[in-house]
Amino acid sequence: MRIGCNELRAKIMSAEEAASFITSGSTVGLSGFTGSGYPKAVPLALAARIEAAHAAGDPFKVRVWTGASTGPELDGALAKADGIEFRLPYNSDPLVRDKINRGEMQYFDMHLSQVAPLAWQGFLGPLDTAVVEVSGIRPDGSLIPSSSVGNNKTWLDRAKQVILEVNAWQNDALEGMHDIYYGTALPPNRVPIPLVRPDDRIGQPYFRCDPGKVVAVVQTHAQDRNLPFSPPDEVAAGIAGHLLDFFAHEVKKGRLPASLLPLQSGVGNIANAVLAGLVDGPFENMTAYTEVIQDGMLDLMSCGKLRMASATAFSLSPEAAAALNADMHRYRDKMILRPQEISNHPELIRRLGCLAMNGLIEADIYGNVNSTHVMGSRIQNGIGGSGDFARNAYVSIFMTPSTAKGGKISAIVPMASHVDHITQDVQVIVTEQGLADLRGLSPKQRSKVIIENCAHPDYKPELVDYARRAAERSYGQHSPSMLNEALSWHQRFVETGSMLP
Amino acid sequence: MRIGCNELRAKIMSAEEAASFITSGSTVGLSGFTGSGYPKAVPLALAARIEAAHAAGDPFKVRVWTGASTGPELDGALAKADGIEFRLPYNSDPLVRDKINRGEMQYFDMHLSQVAPLAWQGFLGPLDTAVVEVSGIRPDGSLIPSSSVGNNKTWLDRAKQVILEVNAWQNDALEGMHDIYYGTALPPNRVPIPLVRPDDRIGQPYFRCDPGKVVAVVQTHAQDRNLPFSPPDEVAAGIAGHLLDFFAHEVKKGRLPASLLPLQSGVGNIANAVLAGLVDGPFENMTAYTEVIQDGMLDLMSCGKLRMASATAFSLSPEAAAALNADMHRYRDKMILRPQEISNHPELIRRLGCLAMNGLIEADIYGNVNSTHVMGSRIQNGIGGSGDFARNAYVSIFMTPSTAKGGKISAIVPMASHVDHITQDVQVIVTEQGLADLRGLSPKQRSKVIIENCAHPDYKPELVDYARRAAERSYGQHSPSMLNEALSWHQRFVETGSMLP
Ligand SMILES: CC(C)(COP(=O)(O)OP(=O)(O)OC[C@H]1O[C@@H](n2cnc3c(N)ncnc32)[C@H](O)[C@@H]1OP(=O)(O)O)[C@@H](O)C(=O)NCCC(=O)NCCS
Ligand SMILES: CC(C)(COP(=O)(O)OP(=O)(O)OC[C@H]1O[C@@H](n2cnc3c(N)ncnc32)[C@H](O)[C@@H]1OP(=O)(O)O)[C@@H](O)C(=O)NCCC(=O)NCCS
Repeated sequence: MRIGCNELRAKIMSAEEAASFITSGSTVGLSGFTGSGYPKAVPLALAARIEAAHAAGDPFKVRVWTGASTGPELDGALAKADGIEFRLPYNSDPLVRDKINRGEMQYFDMHLSQVAPLAWQGFLGPLDTAVVEVSGIRPDGSLIPSSSVGNNKTWLDRAKQVILEVNAWQNDALEGMHDIYYGTALPPNRVPIPLVRPDDRIGQPYFRCDPGKVVAVVQTHAQDRNLPFSPPDEVAAGIAGHLLDFFAHEVKKGRLPASLLPLQSGVGNIANAVLAGLVDGPFENMTAYTEVIQDGMLDLMSCGKLRMASATAFSLSPEAAAALNADMHRYRDKMILRPQEISNHPELIRRLGCLAMNGLIEADIYGNVNSTHVMGSRIQNGIGGSGDFARNAYVSIFMTPSTAKGGKISAIVPMASHVDHITQDVQVIVTEQGLADLRGLSPKQRSKVIIENCAHPDYKPELVDYARRAAERSYGQHSPSMLNEALSWHQRFVETGSMLP
Repeated sequence: MRIGCNELRAKIMSAEEAASFITSGSTVGLSGFTGSGYPKAVPLALAARIEAAHAAGDPFKVRVWTGASTGPELDGALAKADGIEFRLPYNSDPLVRDKINRGEMQYFDMHLSQVAPLAWQGFLGPLDTAVVEVSGIRPDGSLIPSSSVGNNKTWLDRAKQVILEVNAWQNDALEGMHDIYYGTALPPNRVPIPLVRPDDRIGQPYFRCDPGKVVAVVQTHAQDRNLPFSPPDEVAAGIAGHLLDFFAHEVKKGRLPASLLPLQSGVGNIANAVLAGLVDGPFENMTAYTEVIQDGMLDLMSCGKLRMASATAFSLSPEAAAALNADMHRYRDKMILRPQEISNHPELIRRLGCLAMNGLIEADIYGNVNSTHVMGSRIQNGIGGSGDFARNAYVSIFMTPSTAKGGKISAIVPMASHVDHITQDVQVIVTEQGLADLRGLSPKQRSKVIIENCAHPDYKPELVDYARRAAERSYGQHSPSMLNEALSWHQRFVETGSMLP
């Protein structure tokens, strides 16, 4: 029995009844981080309510706060119902993305470590309702977290009313795996966070929750929906190869320990390919301090090379999720799930000295990285935790195929059309062409290495030519640029569908 | 007697003799942070040596590492001698700036908190010589720091040989004012930094230094050379007024304590005007956790409103320096000078919840801030500590006159020509026109508030027009932009000397 608390058992009801507690114009804080641990019934019921209201000619929209991206039953359904007025802090749902890029939804794209502190600071406005998936309720009313932690602690503490979804699909061996730290505060009352190894447990395995605030408990049995990974292709394998060589070189030089430093790995196919590459690599006893535990990390644990992983969520393909679920007892002592303000905390990332590996949309010849905006204006996903990690990592690495859209777009451009990571926060750029180690280089030195090592041959001559002419004509020679040409590649793509001349 | 250690007294020599220990091609780590605490004799002697070598047809250049900017006897003299091959981490010397912008010097513009850790990481190469000004040497060989701390601890620890300048001009009441923290380490051995109030002392008042590494001790009696501040003009007063209103409003809303939170204040006239404004403001018992102690902070201490200030250096006008020197005993218990990796540490800035107030070159309509590159290519100074503070502050504020160069340049532009602070790190922008509170807003909402509240009337209609047309034509509608027009204001300035059409 997943619901051990009588007071809360008395509040079991249908998702439709639960959704009726949510009013138009209110702010809803939902669980969910990538495709795991998001509520799967109430948002659907809310979407139906919104559609009914719209059909009757009544306005109905809510403000949606989550951990990060969620699943189609949440973002997808609410967007389809045209029910989201404002969204934070991260999204990867295609329907939501379209609405934002058509100008129909306000999106506040934030550093993931800062969501909880900002919610506490108060100027985002009150949080009316928390809708949180848990894997169980204990007799004392405390909650066993689900497959992601995200901002749930904060939503449960801040919300005026709480709706719980108890998902029996979640493995009951999740119990005990979480580490919920209740030591955060607003300044001037903040204290050091006492974590010095990725393995450290500094909190408790359960959420506190005032049962009096809980207005509804909904029982579900629904699986997390993460996307499958594609098997590493040649490009991903090339990137992984360059990166593993770099790590081996740094170990040889004595600049990295033989077990490396705690790995942070972004989501996506390339990140996963790098993890796959580490399975055959020389590094043992590794750890991860990262946002999400993905397929590649389970493989690394299976083969004994990854000693443990700390994250805020699982982000597993359906097959890996099934495999983990079948074998949870083997893995659970090697994994800790924490609130995202801890998994992504600048204090901890800098202390641990993470090796950060993230994807990008484009980088320019000086190493400014755009992670979010296609052609400078169209949001892809959001900055997520990449800023938390990139600025504080021991080595901040960005990885990308050298081209996108079948070669019609160069990932290395004269000037980034939007900047998320400034050159100071980008130490290494890797494409399948090669790796650029930018540490200690001036802008012009960086541009040489990036063009030479990372650009695709189809675009390299043009980049060389741009840099050469900029060095002759630029207003200043620190970071030479030609203002009337810097964004012309993007303009050409918008006009012709290709950056190729 | 400033030199209490016999072993080191035996190494007293002239600046010329000391400079002869420095060889061409080597890396020199010098003290100095803004115009204080930099060595004043050896760099001049080195510059003379370099000039003599050049006159004889021999190459002679060094790699220069410092705390931040320094005085004309260091950067100015070495640049004039054409003796700097590579410079980190910050510069504001006009001669050095010119050389960088003519492409004659490599400049690695860094986050100031990261200089010491990067030097320890090792890939910047070895540090051959440290040249450090101190205010005294104790009998056991430990060193009494001078008017800035900067990276001196790291230079003294890392350098193969050490040259000390003992400056008798520095007030001997400086002794005991410093707090040198020796608890930093490289990962995986980093631990929490045990500072929870700006007042906390977590280290010791002296530098350790192996006397065996000291090759020369030079005696000087030379004053720090900081620039005078101009008295607050109408523009600066306007900015200060808007900002004080904002603080009062936040206190009223319960989002800031009545004594505010630790202030961080950038250098420059406007920062100083804001501090002057606080003298007449309603806030008592304030503290500062900042990089430099400038004139305005002394005034705030005099009137009893600023309880204490923690920084890494003084940055005082000649008059204020003289006043402080005459009255040091009154102030010294209210001030702590620390290494810059502590004054600027992300862990501490976030814990303390600083109110960060920094200057900018330009901001765009979405709140991306350029602090460093005029017209996208010409370096002004460098990012300094602004990134350390802006990303981790409780509220990150940027301040600027709405125009520069007599109105020919708008500080608010369609697209920043370079980005140092991404929109996520910019919560408030203030000009003499007004204040834009950007917290919780989507890009299009931000652009409305910035244009309306901050832009100068000469440029506002054009910005409104740009935003309106971008919202019709942009590729995506999340952050609408027109790629072929976004940088046209800058291009116009370069071509015509004015952004005005
Ligand atoms: C940047 C990011 C979108 C790359 O994602 P990825 O899965 O590694 O890489 P992909 O090559 O599959 O790219 C994803 C999509 O962006 C598109 N894309 C990539 N680069 C592009 C470019 N320069 N121009 C246009 N589109 C581009 C791809 O074509 C693909 O589109 P599709 O889904 O329509 O096929 C992703 O890493 C991200 O969202 N990053 C920001 C958040 C973050 O870093 N989180 C990590 C956790 S801290
Ligand atoms: C951005 C910065 C240069 C502004 O300096 P300031 O003294 O506050 O402001 P000023 O208006 O006096 O500007 C300084 C110079 O930049 C020029 N400038 C400012 N905005 C400009 C613009 N948009 N275009 C061209 N030039 C501009 C000014 O004209 C002035 O030039 P001058 O010395 O030739 O007259 C300065 O704050 C800085 O270097 N910041 C980065 C480092 C930092 O923030 N440190 C803080 C400590 S953490």
